[in-house]
Amino acid sequence: MNQFTSREAEVDVMNFLNEISYRYPEAISFASGRPTDKHFNIQRWLESAAKFIEHFSVKQGISYQRAEQLISQYGKTNGVVNELIAEQVRKDQGINCCDKDIIITNGCQEAMALCLLSLCREPDDVLLVCNPTYIGITGLADVLDIEVCSVDYHHEAQLLQTLGVKIEALIADKKRPRAFYLMPDFDNPSGLQLSLQARQQILELCSKYDVAILEDNPYGLFQYNGEPKPALYQLDESGCVIYLGTYAKTLCPAIRIGYLILPPHFLGDVQRQQALSDKLSSLKSYLSVNTSQITQAILGGVLLDNQCSVESLVVQPRKTYLDNRDTLVTALERFFADYRDQVSWNIPAGGFFLKLTLPFKFNSQDVAQCAQHHQVICMPMSYFAQDNQFDNCVRLAFSNLDRDQIVLGVERLSRYIIEKLAAQKQRIDRQERA
Amino acid sequence: MNQFTSREAEVDVMNFLNEISYRYPEAISFASGRPTDKHFNIQRWLESAAKFIEHFSVKQGISYQRAEQLISQYGKTNGVVNELIAEQVRKDQGINCCDKDIIITNGCQEAMALCLLSLCREPDDVLLVCNPTYIGITGLADVLDIEVCSVDYHHEAQLLQTLGVKIEALIADKKRPRAFYLMPDFDNPSGLQLSLQARQQILELCSKYDVAILEDNPYGLFQYNGEPKPALYQLDESGCVIYLGTYAKTLCPAIRIGYLILPPHFLGDVQRQQALSDKLSSLKSYLSVNTSQITQAILGGVLLDNQCSVESLVVQPRKTYLDNRDTLVTALERFFADYRDQVSWNIPAGGFFLKLTLPFKFNSQDVAQCAQHHQVICMPMSYFAQDNQFDNCVRLAFSNLDRDQIVLGVERLSRYIIEKLAAQKQRIDRQERA
Repeated sequence: MNQFTSREAEVDVMNFLNEISYRYPEAISFASGRPTDKHFNIQRWLESAAKFIEHFSVKQGISYQRAEQLISQYGKTNGVVNELIAEQVRKDQGINCCDKDIIITNGCQEAMALCLLSLCREPDDVLLVCNPTYIGITGLADVLDIEVCSVDYHHEAQLLQTLGVKIEALIADKKRPRAFYLMPDFDNPSGLQLSLQARQQILELCSKYDVAILEDNPYGLFQYNGEPKPALYQLDESGCVIYLGTYAKTLCPAIRIGYLILPPHFLGDVQRQQALSDKLSSLKSYLSVNTSQITQAILGGVLLDNQCSVESLVVQPRKTYLDNRDTLVTALERFFADYRDQVSWNIPAGGFFLKLTLPFKFNSQDVAQCAQHHQVICMPMSYFAQDNQFDNCVRLAFSNLDRDQIVLGVERLSRYIIEKLAAQKQRIDRQERA
Repeated sequence: MNQFTSREAEVDVMNFLNEISYRYPEAISFASGRPTDKHFNIQRWLESAAKFIEHFSVKQGISYQRAEQLISQYGKTNGVVNELIAEQVRKDQGINCCDKDIIITNGCQEAMALCLLSLCREPDDVLLVCNPTYIGITGLADVLDIEVCSVDYHHEAQLLQTLGVKIEALIADKKRPRAFYLMPDFDNPSGLQLSLQARQQILELCSKYDVAILEDNPYGLFQYNGEPKPALYQLDESGCVIYLGTYAKTLCPAIRIGYLILPPHFLGDVQRQQALSDKLSSLKSYLSVNTSQITQAILGGVLLDNQCSVESLVVQPRKTYLDNRDTLVTALERFFADYRDQVSWNIPAGGFFLKLTLPFKFNSQDVAQCAQHHQVICMPMSYFAQDNQFDNCVRLAFSNLDRDQIVLGVERLSRYIIEKLAAQKQRIDRQERA
């Protein structure tokens, strides 16, 4: 565990980044993975709630006024727009599920909390994650005192080689690997996407050892090259995948609606699925009673307005992201033209993040220096890592910037990096002379 | 612990009540403590969001369009309408607090989860609750594996006598009583309100032993007789009170906005307060990132439309509840006129609940019988209790019924109870003759 994986340290990281952003408001930030807000239409979305209330009144055979009253009340623990969500994931992502297997949550983060609280309750229970991975899952495991075991993920071959070994080592050590958290499509922070074959192998492995897969898919609809890959949930025959979704990126973050979808048979067992489903509902009721029926009505109205597909909502943002990615890559090529042997990056086929690899460690001190002297902010990859393997990498989020900002931001960042490379070279030359 | 305090059993209770309500939709239900929905105005409230966005744009010195975009994004972990809430509790409840000490949550239930996860993390940490108490707090403690110690609360003198004894016994047993959950005003389920003197004594005791008080106050603004009592938070000089509030009853449940207010010095210590505040924020970010800025904007707009007071929103509901309480009491007097020596009840000075005391145990079987044969549903007090002391009591919620339903409901319930009394008498007579 490195310095940034303990609870206080993660808060420190977040406070540190917030403070940096606050102190240098003019800095261009590649730190935040927020969706673009250019296409938000909150006014229209608020008005859509009426459409869902109308739909609800017809379905329930009650007056519109009575439907309004009931939607304004407490509601079912698992949610009220589950059928519309089931239809949306079927249309947009080819996921077939039953609406009774969906639990609607306060953003996807709460879905993760429900899963960890349900699956990892004994001291020997272990959560598997990739290294690096999303801070929200390791931080959550940490506050819930759940042991985390990480599987290196520089590339998928490594992940596949290591996963089985790690699971077996845990079992040999009398631990219980209960769940594997994974973002198969355009991973945060690495930007990687798993091949179909890798997906199948992961399913086989997890199914063999009764490890649930928490498949988090916030970026799947933002693919820029190649054919979409099927979700693990779709490929799953043994019932080990719990699918985690969100409307934070397809509608907007403020809607705070996420969901989880249980497999029809959990680890091949219908009764075990029912028990898990009951446990998750119970936990949901104790954590937050139920998700706001106001935001659910807004989402429901928007889905009804769009034939239960978010495709029309993501068309423009997807173009923006693709354009941003290309602008970022072109800018990197331009400003690091003379340093291609030392500075490298991936070209993500989708999602919000690109990984930059440097010939030196990039840490919080570098973040502060970049912000202060070059008016640019980015995230060291070490913040997402469980050890020091990624200390040389930086995560660049390109989702919520415009073209000019990206070019200027890369120019500024390149100045810092090139200066540091020059200083490094000078030091080495001096050492060689000495 | 009785049968209804373990996790599965509580789910069973809820499932059982849902099933009963579902099977007998025509039954009059005294089971649900929902607010009256007669005065909800969801359409107008949705429109109010624009007012808050306007306010936010002026405060931030940005355009309305930019404010809309920012409100649609992720937001500050602790919330965006904290100043308006600080003003509202000052105006309506005389609570003086700083907006930076407020954390806005997904309903009050999430505020409780944050408090328990922050305060009770070690195996020896114990949560004190009243017996009986709100199911949401004991169920939450149960899913988080937190030990609960209950303090009998038939009346306040008993509570005061027992609280110190229990705390000392826990300490002698090497346990750490960390927090005491309490509803001082019109307790759910008992309907009781603590006197000023009782409040002061509880504060003294908890302050002496460094026990945090979780003061939950959903019903404080619904007082029908007597002068309002100051909140413990207001009386607190040692910094032991964390105040828990909600807009579920003053606006509507679907808004799902609750909050917690930290004391300025936690247990007399500013640094300890800062540490707790950071821990709570960190937990909030890992449980649900932040509370929806859409629902916050709706609440903010409603507060701005009402000079930061909910008084104008609660005037009509309060009249409804008072009228309902009086209707309920009158109906009880009428239908139990000949049984006053055997059946008794309190007259709550506020809130949503009345406690009926019977000369026999009233359990789930009775609920099913009442629903099936008499088309009336109510909650055994044993569901809220930690032992069998309240097996003879029933909780009657009168908040979301109309006058005719209340009278008819009591008539139906009285038939069941009187039949059961008659059967009991016959049995005793027979035994005496034998």
